[in-house]
Amino acid sequence: MSTKGHVDVWRVLLKPDYAAHLTDGQWRELANDPDWREAEVEFPQLMDELYARFGSKVPGYGTGSSGAANPSLAVDELSVLGKGHRHVQGMGVVTGVGKYAVNLTVSDMLYMKTLRSPHPRALVKAIDTSKAEALRGVAMILHRFNLPEEYQDSRLEGGPKPRFLFDEEVTQVGAPVAAVAAESEHIADEAIHLIEVEYEVLPAVTNFLDGIKPGAPKLWDNEYDGTILDISEPLVRGDPDAGMKEAGAVVDAISTRSTEQNAPLELTSGICWWENERLTWYWTARHAHGERDRMARALKLPSSRVRVIQTGYLGGSYGSHRNGDVSEVHAAILAKLTGKPVRATATRSEDFITRTVRAAVHTEGKLGVNREGAFVAATYKLISDTGAGSSNRSPGAWIGLETLYNIPNLRLEGIGVYTNNVRSGSYRCVSHPYATLAQETLVDKAAYAVGMNPLEIRLKNVNEVGHPDTGKPYSNPGIRDCLTQAAERIGWETKWHPAGAKEVRPGVFHGIGMAAHACSHGAGGHPSTGVVIVNPDGTVNVVSGAAEVGGGQRTVMAMIAAETLGIPYEQVGIAPEIDTDYTSDTGVTAGSRQTNSGGWGVYEAALDARRQLLEGAVQKFTADARKDGRTIEVTPEALDIRDGFVFFKDDPETKIPVADAVEAVVPRTPVIGRGAHFHPPTWERLAFAAHAAEVEVDTVTGSVSVLRYVAAHDVGRAMNPLGLEQQIQGGVTMGISAALSEGLVNDKATGLPLTDNILEYKALTIKDAPRNVEAIFVEHAKEYGVFGAHGIGEPPIAVAPPTIANAIYNAIGVWITSLPITRDKILAALEAA
Amino acid sequence: MSTKGHVDVWRVLLKPDYAAHLTDGQWRELANDPDWREAEVEFPQLMDELYARFGSKVPGYGTGSSGAANPSLAVDELSVLGKGHRHVQGMGVVTGVGKYAVNLTVSDMLYMKTLRSPHPRALVKAIDTSKAEALRGVAMILHRFNLPEEYQDSRLEGGPKPRFLFDEEVTQVGAPVAAVAAESEHIADEAIHLIEVEYEVLPAVTNFLDGIKPGAPKLWDNEYDGTILDISEPLVRGDPDAGMKEAGAVVDAISTRSTEQNAPLELTSGICWWENERLTWYWTARHAHGERDRMARALKLPSSRVRVIQTGYLGGSYGSHRNGDVSEVHAAILAKLTGKPVRATATRSEDFITRTVRAAVHTEGKLGVNREGAFVAATYKLISDTGAGSSNRSPGAWIGLETLYNIPNLRLEGIGVYTNNVRSGSYRCVSHPYATLAQETLVDKAAYAVGMNPLEIRLKNVNEVGHPDTGKPYSNPGIRDCLTQAAERIGWETKWHPAGAKEVRPGVFHGIGMAAHACSHGAGGHPSTGVVIVNPDGTVNVVSGAAEVGGGQRTVMAMIAAETLGIPYEQVGIAPEIDTDYTSDTGVTAGSRQTNSGGWGVYEAALDARRQLLEGAVQKFTADARKDGRTIEVTPEALDIRDGFVFFKDDPETKIPVADAVEAVVPRTPVIGRGAHFHPPTWERLAFAAHAAEVEVDTVTGSVSVLRYVAAHDVGRAMNPLGLEQQIQGGVTMGISAALSEGLVNDKATGLPLTDNILEYKALTIKDAPRNVEAIFVEHAKEYGVFGAHGIGEPPIAVAPPTIANAIYNAIGVWITSLPITRDKILAALEAA
Repeated sequence: MSTKGHVDVWRVLLKPDYAAHLTDGQWRELANDPDWREAEVEFPQLMDELYARFGSKVPGYGTGSSGAANPSLAVDELSVLGKGHRHVQGMGVVTGVGKYAVNLTVSDMLYMKTLRSPHPRALVKAIDTSKAEALRGVAMILHRFNLPEEYQDSRLEGGPKPRFLFDEEVTQVGAPVAAVAAESEHIADEAIHLIEVEYEVLPAVTNFLDGIKPGAPKLWDNEYDGTILDISEPLVRGDPDAGMKEAGAVVDAISTRSTEQNAPLELTSGICWWENERLTWYWTARHAHGERDRMARALKLPSSRVRVIQTGYLGGSYGSHRNGDVSEVHAAILAKLTGKPVRATATRSEDFITRTVRAAVHTEGKLGVNREGAFVAATYKLISDTGAGSSNRSPGAWIGLETLYNIPNLRLEGIGVYTNNVRSGSYRCVSHPYATLAQETLVDKAAYAVGMNPLEIRLKNVNEVGHPDTGKPYSNPGIRDCLTQAAERIGWETKWHPAGAKEVRPGVFHGIGMAAHACSHGAGGHPSTGVVIVNPDGTVNVVSGAAEVGGGQRTVMAMIAAETLGIPYEQVGIAPEIDTDYTSDTGVTAGSRQTNSGGWGVYEAALDARRQLLEGAVQKFTADARKDGRTIEVTPEALDIRDGFVFFKDDPETKIPVADAVEAVVPRTPVIGRGAHFHPPTWERLAFAAHAAEVEVDTVTGSVSVLRYVAAHDVGRAMNPLGLEQQIQGGVTMGISAALSEGLVNDKATGLPLTDNILEYKALTIKDAPRNVEAIFVEHAKEYGVFGAHGIGEPPIAVAPPTIANAIYNAIGVWITSLPITRDKILAALEAA
Repeated sequence: MSTKGHVDVWRVLLKPDYAAHLTDGQWRELANDPDWREAEVEFPQLMDELYARFGSKVPGYGTGSSGAANPSLAVDELSVLGKGHRHVQGMGVVTGVGKYAVNLTVSDMLYMKTLRSPHPRALVKAIDTSKAEALRGVAMILHRFNLPEEYQDSRLEGGPKPRFLFDEEVTQVGAPVAAVAAESEHIADEAIHLIEVEYEVLPAVTNFLDGIKPGAPKLWDNEYDGTILDISEPLVRGDPDAGMKEAGAVVDAISTRSTEQNAPLELTSGICWWENERLTWYWTARHAHGERDRMARALKLPSSRVRVIQTGYLGGSYGSHRNGDVSEVHAAILAKLTGKPVRATATRSEDFITRTVRAAVHTEGKLGVNREGAFVAATYKLISDTGAGSSNRSPGAWIGLETLYNIPNLRLEGIGVYTNNVRSGSYRCVSHPYATLAQETLVDKAAYAVGMNPLEIRLKNVNEVGHPDTGKPYSNPGIRDCLTQAAERIGWETKWHPAGAKEVRPGVFHGIGMAAHACSHGAGGHPSTGVVIVNPDGTVNVVSGAAEVGGGQRTVMAMIAAETLGIPYEQVGIAPEIDTDYTSDTGVTAGSRQTNSGGWGVYEAALDARRQLLEGAVQKFTADARKDGRTIEVTPEALDIRDGFVFFKDDPETKIPVADAVEAVVPRTPVIGRGAHFHPPTWERLAFAAHAAEVEVDTVTGSVSVLRYVAAHDVGRAMNPLGLEQQIQGGVTMGISAALSEGLVNDKATGLPLTDNILEYKALTIKDAPRNVEAIFVEHAKEYGVFGAHGIGEPPIAVAPPTIANAIYNAIGVWITSLPITRDKILAALEAA
């Protein structure tokens, strides 16, 4: 099967008006059906066939576009988007006026502290709270032996095995054993030290590679052996083993990454209380609606009886501040039972070990390449540490391996290992960096093996068509431009040299490296909703559930509303908070998705309002003419809105203020627009990037200096160039930090965390971070993107580690693909070489 | 001109589809045009004529009904409405969990206190703040000599002459002279005593009847004499002087009311701060959006850069907590200049004398009646104390005089007198109680004069058709039922007796009285907006700007959403707060309007959501059938929603949960409905009521005991019977309080307030209030009302004073129509008689 031919056949399906409404699963089903794959069906027969196969076609209900076309791409000239705007919450952050969850106090609060397991694995046999209860100021202690019956089967979702509010078996250091509510934080803290717990310590797995060895402790009953959580069904394309035999050169490598902690500055914090038989939960929640729904299910309430408010100023996220833990449920129950508000603020250590991390991973990769430098076959096997109870699986990591290059023969395997370590979960770009590190270092290794320039081998193999297995096409992919523009900017042609060939000072070697990237973040998805209110004075309030996590998400919401409505940006207001009682769910701020989720929702809402404004303006122009004794025929299509005025397209001087159009719709009444966008799965929606870096490696000390860093991203459309640049710079900095420095380390004997604090975890500080990350925006507008945009909140972090590893190899001629690439690893590798 | 005939001619205009879109002014213009009044025009000629006359007809843009028909009246069976529900915020109030503005604190606040004029009228010549500024902890003092230039021409709207932030001429006791921001309330308080002000005291008017006497001080330059604010153009119908001559009996009376204070329990309080170059203003505001807009104009900002949050728990309103004073602007400017949050909480005295009151009034009335008891002519002249700077005018009081009875000859005159007293403004039912007191006591006087029973004379004269002057008809008026049902409930037929005829104990006389009422409150109006969100689990959040002031407004919003969507009431959530950044303006909670303003908005929003849900359900049913190999034809019209399920009307067992319909609209996405209702001015929308009371009057002590009280109201539809009953009971209690006890009294010599506190103002306490107010709901569904409802928040207060006055006359045979009817007035009247 020829990939190219495969995609060509499938182009018949691309007409969005009839293919827009298939699900991803339906696409894959069609792609794997030989009859369909070979079919030369034409519209309208195709419609009938699809209809018969999949039942009712869901029409495009989006209030504006159905997804069948993208009206936002039809805008000729942008007024607001494409120009740099400061973050709408920026002044609040830098002046200290903006309040964080920990700043909120309510009267008569109790403070919660949690007694946590000191063992990676143990049974809780008995709890004696008598001494703690005797402490003055202790209001209530909750644990598994006194949990009210109605909550005994309550559980949090999102794990492979049930997570009850208090488990008999604690499965990680830090697992909650009892929760104390007391009149002060100090009393609560004192009380947890007075609680006596009888544990039966059980054998634990704290090194995930030990977990798949024979004889590893059986941690629970599952379909494998109680340690392996999941063996993914391998993805196989062509015949990878035969392909390897055909290849002229085969390179392989093991790449590994340490456990990485998001480590946002703000700690988990919140207050909850019961008001009017509803739970109010004011918390550092990155996805207020998702937390509301999870909390409601845990407490067996309708979601409309839980209210979650996110402060609007979240001190970083990077994947954290999501998926409320059982601690939040404990607080809610304590608040209910005591009748008082309960505040809980985590310690740094608690946030490090009881929330989630990017799993440590071990990847075995092999790449076969022919004499012309074309990739023939590749195999990758990922083994990752899912920690104690995550549902994270491996295949999410595969998308870049499946799509970035044309590889006719491919096998991808994955094993998730259940351990007694910190639970794995989302951290900026989640598992995609695994693939990028493994693949991009192998690509360089292959280039060196066949004597090609790393830029050349990438340009030769890069896939610019679509997903080879499903036939879903890319929309206007910019990967080639990313590669060539990054190379051009850094001066690749003149600066690249053979490995180890450029000693710039005694013992100090110059290196240059690059890496490419494709992953599925940034495309948005369901839900994508929003509301805009055009006030009687013609100004606008945007009501969006898109949480700000520091990336400028809410600034883009305001900009989209202004652009779509033709109302000056300065007249658009948006509040910081997300309150589930007032906003509609537009999904978690994750997956680099808000531009294409909240943004689509606001766009559709603004279109809905705009339509009403134009109809109002028709009435107003008609009435005004009649007052002058004239009769005119006006249609909404003849009108446009810009700078707060509705005008005739063919006579821009004939205009009325937007306020007059608002008045003409319904007197003295704001115009409300609502939006809910339907995302058709027509396209394979990938984020493309290419980075390049120059480094100097000191072979005496092992230290690495990043001299220059260039990051080119296909952003579709640069919505807010200022925020975009900052996002790329921040992501690259975190990627370099992972490449050179970060890692959450446990004591292997006891499983106790050793680096559960900012000092020892060693994220790069502002003094370590490179000052010179240059962002390049490749603007290949996407059919699926609002105004053509593709989000890039996460991808930058994924590309930096292989870029740095490749540059280090170019400098010193030895491969180090085990992150973090610390001085001792460099010195050891040099010594071994 | 025959009133009856007049209305008949105008019935041609009643077809809502072509008359719905005229304004009140246009109606009146047509009514006064003889050609039109006599015309026998028919549709569609009428349409063309209206179109030519008034220009473009505004189509009904309301998202659901255009106002041309009322789909909410087509509902056969109600599930939620009509059943009593506890207030959604009730638990928050009674448990103390609900927070009021004064409960909110933010860190690093300043406290504002205001130096206020001790003179009713004076010029501020100089201000020396040096001693105050030297006080440790004083952050800033603002006054007219240091006000930043940009605010020197800022003014608050709503008065007959400009109200600048600090006036050179202070025009009432309590007018602001300087505002201090300090680190504590005590320091601020101390500082205002250290400010030295040089005043030039000017002659003042503190008795409004003195203001129209020759030689009264000229207070300002206006078109009259500087004291009279306004002489309304008299309303004249027929020939009242000739009518009086024809009448068999003419009765007259002067009725007066004292200045009445709303006196809600909660004092004006709030905090404001600047965040992200926007003003946030957290205040006891009954109309958050209105305050936002006023504040924005005063500060010269777009309204989207001001955010007003109302706490959601307002400790009473009754017309107060509206129209932010200059003090709120002072706080905003102090917050801006100091860069800190500024809190201000009024004292009780400040709220009594610097906010607004129901103006004292003097009404001279005359009623001519023929021998059969038919009203022939009436004249009323109202003189009211507008205080210092209100825009309150008299004609608002006239509607009951114009409409309640058939009176062919009528003259209404009004004079508003500008004084140096507390500004007049809105207080429950505003000026309508003037008319009801004057008219209903005269009606009884006339009945006694011609020897008729007060019930009989009312039933004979009551107007059940429409407005005699504009021809706008009533919709299903229930005034006759109110009269007969109130009379029946109290046992009028057996209990009524000639005046002074029933001594029940020595010196104690039994009396029975009734009064009727018509006024224009309760019909709602623009803006009427709302949003509903149907969550993916099928539960609902209602997003409404309808402020709760204790009347159960938000409970009715939730009920309307549940009823319209067919989703159980328990699954509908609504937050307490009104936040202008998240909600759309649905008007002030005033005019008894929220059921027909916020309620219409929520209804239209729910219809919008319901339409989407039915379309989703069509898709789901179709797809399900197809999966089973069946083909079905479904239309939304074939489906209905009840108890959270969408079902086939002709096969209720075939059903899906609402959650499935939500999912079918757009996957994983809530359904948002938005509503903005257009109110056609087709109808004369009046609140009708009749009350009856039994009293005992002790002729030795002068004390009055209310034995029994019955209040019948045409409510259109009893939406929440529990809340409705409480509204009527509360209103009657306040009305009895005004009748017997309340009055804001000034020292006549100095103008200084004497009763500016709860103790001396003498509102009835719970110990004084009658326990036995029986509410009767007359349910005459209205074409213009959502589900037929007509609001009745205010009317009950208006009917009680004449009911009590009439009962007192019936008891002791002397007329006292000067409120409050205190013991000394009763004893003096008895002595005079």
